[in-house]
Amino acid sequence: MREINQTKVFVQYRDVMKPYEPVMGRKYTITHSDKTAELFVFVAQNYAEDQITSMRDEVIVAWEPYKIGIALIGSVIVDGNGVIGDAYIRNKIFYNEMPKALQALRQADRFLFDKEPNLDKTPVLIHFISSNPIYDKTYNFGAIGIYK
Amino acid sequence: MREINQTKVFVQYRDVMKPYEPVMGRKYTITHSDKTAELFVFVAQNYAEDQITSMRDEVIVAWEPYKIGIALIGSVIVDGNGVIGDAYIRNKIFYNEMPKALQALRQADRFLFDKEPNLDKTPVLIHFISSNPIYDKTYNFGAIGIYK
Repeated sequence: MREINQTKVFVQYRDVMKPYEPVMGRKYTITHSDKTAELFVFVAQNYAEDQITSMRDEVIVAWEPYKIGIALIGSVIVDGNGVIGDAYIRNKIFYNEMPKALQALRQADRFLFDKEPNLDKTPVLIHFISSNPIYDKTYNFGAIGIYK
Repeated sequence: MREINQTKVFVQYRDVMKPYEPVMGRKYTITHSDKTAELFVFVAQNYAEDQITSMRDEVIVAWEPYKIGIALIGSVIVDGNGVIGDAYIRNKIFYNEMPKALQALRQADRFLFDKEPNLDKTPVLIHFISSNPIYDKTYNFGAIGIYK
């Protein structure tokens, strides 16, 4: 896994969200700048809709109850909903770049994980949303801890 | 004082610096994007020299012992050191925009101030560095708490 440049990761905590709590209800919106390679992680009660551009290249992830524990469950939009761009290419880019987005999340919110190391075992499930069943899949990207 | 847009403030903690500690040794480098109006606050043991551009429009501030207490002591470079731009204009912009930079600092690092409300009383002293004695002055911008 290619490591991200940590000096390019920025965080913005919103509303009641603090560096060390709460876990449940914590939602991440991860965006980036193609130009500067900066990665922006918004930590809030809601997804940062004001940061979502027509490119629809954001990754959203939230802590959610899952089976008998919790999971980081998120999604990306491959196609549909007026998204411009080839689904094959968007799907490929999202899949290849996901480790980068997850590293940004883990880096931005590392204080939470440092405080509760067990959280590093949380599985990450990302739904690739598409009108085409070939792309419309949920991938398990493994435990968030592998992205630290 | 015109209030900054809090959704434009991003923080990046580096090295040993955490949201709630330590106070002493904490150094801020505040930069901005003229294009997007985003404000970036780097919190680290050293100033984020990798973020300083030839524009030299950064504001640097650190917690330092001062008289019988502490102060937030910082500086900006008005002219000299190869800085391009009219000193009169740079001086004016730095002075007028300083409340914005200080609001960004207070917003970015609000967890620290929330934990230790007394810190809001800390005076902010900014040295405007210039080879011209008209501009080379240290201004007291008041208590950091007024920028919250």
